[in-house]
Amino acid sequence: MRILFTGVRDDEMPAVNEWIANHPEHEVVTTTKNLTLENIEMVEGFDALTVQQVLVPEAEVYTRLKEYGITQLSSRTAGVDMYDLVAARENGIAISNVPVYSPNAIAEFALTSALYLTRRFPVILERNAKRDFRFAGMIGREIATMKVAILGTGAIGTITARHFKALGAQIVGFDLYPRDEFREVGTYVDSIEEAVTGADIVSLHMPATAENHHLFGKEMLQRFAPGAVLVNAARGALVDTEALLEVLEEGHLSGAALDTYENEQKYFRYDWSDKDLGDPVLEQLLDRDDVLVTPHVAFYTETAVQNLVYGGLDNAVEVKTTGTCPSVVN
Amino acid sequence: MRILFTGVRDDEMPAVNEWIANHPEHEVVTTTKNLTLENIEMVEGFDALTVQQVLVPEAEVYTRLKEYGITQLSSRTAGVDMYDLVAARENGIAISNVPVYSPNAIAEFALTSALYLTRRFPVILERNAKRDFRFAGMIGREIATMKVAILGTGAIGTITARHFKALGAQIVGFDLYPRDEFREVGTYVDSIEEAVTGADIVSLHMPATAENHHLFGKEMLQRFAPGAVLVNAARGALVDTEALLEVLEEGHLSGAALDTYENEQKYFRYDWSDKDLGDPVLEQLLDRDDVLVTPHVAFYTETAVQNLVYGGLDNAVEVKTTGTCPSVVN
Repeated sequence: MRILFTGVRDDEMPAVNEWIANHPEHEVVTTTKNLTLENIEMVEGFDALTVQQVLVPEAEVYTRLKEYGITQLSSRTAGVDMYDLVAARENGIAISNVPVYSPNAIAEFALTSALYLTRRFPVILERNAKRDFRFAGMIGREIATMKVAILGTGAIGTITARHFKALGAQIVGFDLYPRDEFREVGTYVDSIEEAVTGADIVSLHMPATAENHHLFGKEMLQRFAPGAVLVNAARGALVDTEALLEVLEEGHLSGAALDTYENEQKYFRYDWSDKDLGDPVLEQLLDRDDVLVTPHVAFYTETAVQNLVYGGLDNAVEVKTTGTCPSVVN
Repeated sequence: MRILFTGVRDDEMPAVNEWIANHPEHEVVTTTKNLTLENIEMVEGFDALTVQQVLVPEAEVYTRLKEYGITQLSSRTAGVDMYDLVAARENGIAISNVPVYSPNAIAEFALTSALYLTRRFPVILERNAKRDFRFAGMIGREIATMKVAILGTGAIGTITARHFKALGAQIVGFDLYPRDEFREVGTYVDSIEEAVTGADIVSLHMPATAENHHLFGKEMLQRFAPGAVLVNAARGALVDTEALLEVLEEGHLSGAALDTYENEQKYFRYDWSDKDLGDPVLEQLLDRDDVLVTPHVAFYTETAVQNLVYGGLDNAVEVKTTGTCPSVVN
């Protein structure tokens, strides 16, 4: 089968080449281009398609793909909000995703971010730059002395809980859908309020919904233990960022590690060097020593990329061959 | 009993006050001063003494202490190389230390330092400063895909092994004195050379001896897996720093996290702002993105400080009361 692999990035190539070596029966052609209405003729002669689009294609894309005999579109992403699932289905195009590619990548990053703050790396790095090697102010606090609240105990939250537990933390958790895997390392409590009360680290692993928008506002953040750290490698909308800045300024929290930010769409993944961000809240986050901002990269590991590439190619083959696969979403 | 607590630091005060509250039968007087020949009369009227000296007191100090009726000196340190143990004993002064105060502090820091490098924090932080939020170059590698070599499997090495194992690493180790605790998480191999060969992370937890000076030179470092990371939270003399810089420059190692440096005595704990370090090797370490220098603070946590303060005071009381304690070293 001939497979077109669009939007390929350098970091995907090792996995692509491995997959090709393991599948001599198929031919894979890669292109750095993403699919648009203007270049859609590039699918001509291909049997299957894997993409990782960030833009919403117009409905017409699916009509055109159908004309070229394309019957599936295998997305190398978990989210599928950037596709018109109905238009695709109406044109006989099955869209598949890679729903789980590395929960451990995000769990490990949440731990790393917390440790970065609790072991005072911001102070150490700032002093290094000045060649001031006195250790006053660099005193860390060991995870083994802490209560860690895990909010959302799906695959990512449960692995995060396991990591913190391995370092000796006491783990509490909350989820609308409790799981036995989590019970092996932590104790479920009856509400988010109860989980965060007195917690030294609060790590968010919930989806964003209409109901939980800005759930972590001033009242909730003040329930954390004095000197606590917030870790958000989930969704920016969960946190009222201005309230967070107030609680940090008051000194009630000692830090926050944010891999997501409620208005990140405009910024993360783009180069804003020498440009005015026009977002004083993000500027404050970036300028504060007690805040670690990372541009939504918790997921971004070699393992995750490999799983996305393999999943994208495997799904393309499976759907083209059998008409469907377990991760078809439309 | 009246106890003089010299060289007290701000970060010790919470633990000192807790100890006092739990020991109403004793009186503790704190001073920020360290003991010298010039101020030695401050011990007058005290029954016991706890110190945390960095300077070597002259032998005469012990004669003078004896004149004031002092029979013990309780050091709030593990190392005792800064005391004249013979002169102390000749004057009837028992010196005690706190041999283990928090192996977990150092183990957790070794893990934190490794994660800082493997999850590409240097790239992320440098880009943040420029407001460049593109994620190219920020791809991390998960510990779960790595072979980690632990060299020295005493208390610290074994806990470090346990932490890396919890994140999914395969653990190999070497020690002249193998321990069953380590076997629960890792596999012993027959030599240091065998342990480091193909290792993705090599974490040092050995004492420095005449035999292992610069053991990690070019030949040994080149045995590591391509892209490996060296973590040294043990002793600077283990590593030939110039050879390390060469191997980093060649790109064979992807990074090094150094909490110790062979010529650190002159620099770490001191303020060198706006002064010329006069050490081009240390300058290079500090300037490289792939090297994390931390000024010998792996041990430095609230838990460690509390254990040192409690140990210092408990030992002072025990030696004064019974004439000795398990950690008397002379």
